[in-house]
Amino acid sequence: MQFSIKRTLFVKKLNDVQRAISSKTTIPILTGIKLALTDAGLMLTGSDADISIEAFISATDEKNELEIGSTGAIVLPARFFSEIVKKLPEDTMTLEVKDNFQTELRSGSASFTINGLDANNYPHLPSIDTEKQVVIDANVLKQLIAQTVIAVSTQESRPILTGVHLVLDNQELLAVATDSHRLSQRKLHLDIDKDIHYDVIIPGKSLLELSRTLSDDVETVEMRIAENQVLFVAGTISFYSRLLEGNYPETSRLIPSSSTTQVEFNAPQLLAAIERASLLSHASHNNVIKLTLDPAKDDVTIYGNSPDVGNVQETLTHSNLDGEQLEISFNPDYMKDALRSFGQTEIQVAFTSALRPFTLVPTEDQDHFVQLITPVRTF
Amino acid sequence: MQFSIKRTLFVKKLNDVQRAISSKTTIPILTGIKLALTDAGLMLTGSDADISIEAFISATDEKNELEIGSTGAIVLPARFFSEIVKKLPEDTMTLEVKDNFQTELRSGSASFTINGLDANNYPHLPSIDTEKQVVIDANVLKQLIAQTVIAVSTQESRPILTGVHLVLDNQELLAVATDSHRLSQRKLHLDIDKDIHYDVIIPGKSLLELSRTLSDDVETVEMRIAENQVLFVAGTISFYSRLLEGNYPETSRLIPSSSTTQVEFNAPQLLAAIERASLLSHASHNNVIKLTLDPAKDDVTIYGNSPDVGNVQETLTHSNLDGEQLEISFNPDYMKDALRSFGQTEIQVAFTSALRPFTLVPTEDQDHFVQLITPVRTF
Repeated sequence: MQFSIKRTLFVKKLNDVQRAISSKTTIPILTGIKLALTDAGLMLTGSDADISIEAFISATDEKNELEIGSTGAIVLPARFFSEIVKKLPEDTMTLEVKDNFQTELRSGSASFTINGLDANNYPHLPSIDTEKQVVIDANVLKQLIAQTVIAVSTQESRPILTGVHLVLDNQELLAVATDSHRLSQRKLHLDIDKDIHYDVIIPGKSLLELSRTLSDDVETVEMRIAENQVLFVAGTISFYSRLLEGNYPETSRLIPSSSTTQVEFNAPQLLAAIERASLLSHASHNNVIKLTLDPAKDDVTIYGNSPDVGNVQETLTHSNLDGEQLEISFNPDYMKDALRSFGQTEIQVAFTSALRPFTLVPTEDQDHFVQLITPVRTF
Repeated sequence: MQFSIKRTLFVKKLNDVQRAISSKTTIPILTGIKLALTDAGLMLTGSDADISIEAFISATDEKNELEIGSTGAIVLPARFFSEIVKKLPEDTMTLEVKDNFQTELRSGSASFTINGLDANNYPHLPSIDTEKQVVIDANVLKQLIAQTVIAVSTQESRPILTGVHLVLDNQELLAVATDSHRLSQRKLHLDIDKDIHYDVIIPGKSLLELSRTLSDDVETVEMRIAENQVLFVAGTISFYSRLLEGNYPETSRLIPSSSTTQVEFNAPQLLAAIERASLLSHASHNNVIKLTLDPAKDDVTIYGNSPDVGNVQETLTHSNLDGEQLEISFNPDYMKDALRSFGQTEIQVAFTSALRPFTLVPTEDQDHFVQLITPVRTF
């Protein structure tokens, strides 16, 4: 195996693949990166057994400057190999596998020899054959991931809740996540075959890594689902993740269909006020802030308190406050996550009572996105 | 005590003073920031007992927008107070001390009440009266600090070596630091009174903090030295540090006056090569790289090796290689620190033998700056 390549392009592809590689793995060969060179081009593979990423560098794409001397495969220690490639002196580098998997890297007057491993010992990636292809706009997918993973549980006590529940039915994709204190639900219409139906749970961590892997120049992502794996193909990158096994709890009836108090806010403005109030609630052991809504006086006020440090109150800018008077307390961190997921937009918040979950939806197009937060009992 | 102030300016001054405040202090009042308001303006003070920083906000400087209602003093919890001020909603804020040191902050519709402490319990800063003023160009002082603190010892086994030795004599300032493996020495001519003589040791940590405190708009720094304290005055900032007590070792005779092998490099180019070689030496337990110099072949080559990962060799671009053939090994991290301190410049490296310290000096103006590194015995 021998080739030369444009170094900046190679570094970029190594970075993509390295997202999948964990330094904590217990399988030694997975600390390595696999390079497999055919006449078609160079395939890089990284994996931590949960997720795997492949990046392909085509021999026919001239901007890669890939010159193939001889084909073959090798596994090289991922961290060292990437660091060395990054620091090589010239624009071009040459890699050659010699005896006993010893691999020589050359660039300018620098010459590295690295101990490689036999690529035959690298695990095979699952093959996912399906004709039911689902194509999603890359930016929409990134937004859907950002809006739902915030509500994914980080605790392993109920592993199923560490995933995002994806249901695809009748051209509608429904994504739901909940850690049982809050819930996030996003709906998406897809122009695909009406017969395609899926019901899967993808680990939140995998979706986050996928989102980071999607570069700005990727326009669409193709999703393929098999028995226990999902594959996302984006340009020259293939991203594999295992699926979570089990039944996701029924969530549709958790979202209240009516409310007794409603109010509208500008999301970034409300976020800034919550951040101020949480400075004091964070210094307190229960981390709760209180919101009072008084439609008769058209007043919404927020309160934060820490016995050690002090307290804060702030009258909130709002509109269309309507319904019954209410006093409600909640964890400001859930509120901050939820508000950030709306971006620069106007939102409607709807309450039922001080002990029932309340919802946040965009004032426009209320149906496609909802955040739900369970209040905290303080009396 | 009551005042209103332009918030952005106040945040900047709070940041300056907060550099001195440690969250690890065992003296509770030093977790606070002292605000003392007189008709002249507002003085902010932060301290960790080793260093203290004062920042003054003048009432007569209109751009501060300081409006004084009533004078007085208070100590407020530094971290919370700064975070709150940063997040307040409007451009202007008002602070008012009420009963029992309760302090109210107002900005827009937000109102914070913070528990303060009696300013009478805050320690007094030393008064440093001296007529022997030493004025140094701020950028030159920053450079001198950057060039010497790299060689300061980080181990408390010989506390005196954690400081930089400053000797001021006959209009020359000599700054020396050594951790006994390497040494850095910088000389500076100062246009000051010839009678001014000082010999002090300033903690390296203090000098680093001073350097970070000096903003780009500061042109000169005034240094005042008393019995066991040094004060640096830069614009509206006063920076106090304790001095280290004891005798600094005699260092002048450590620097060799002759050499047997000399060579010149471009500092950033050599740095890049050392960084490449250290990728492998860092993976090895002894972290050593080897340099061979062969004047007969006009060849300089660097070698790095790790039994686990592999090895590297690189022929180095150089000029004016002269003297005896030599093979020498050293810690690449010392070399990297030294090379970074030269910036974008040509340097001369001079060797005596494989076991004697070697020196790095700028090719131009060799007298004012020298870095010395002790090699590692590998046989």
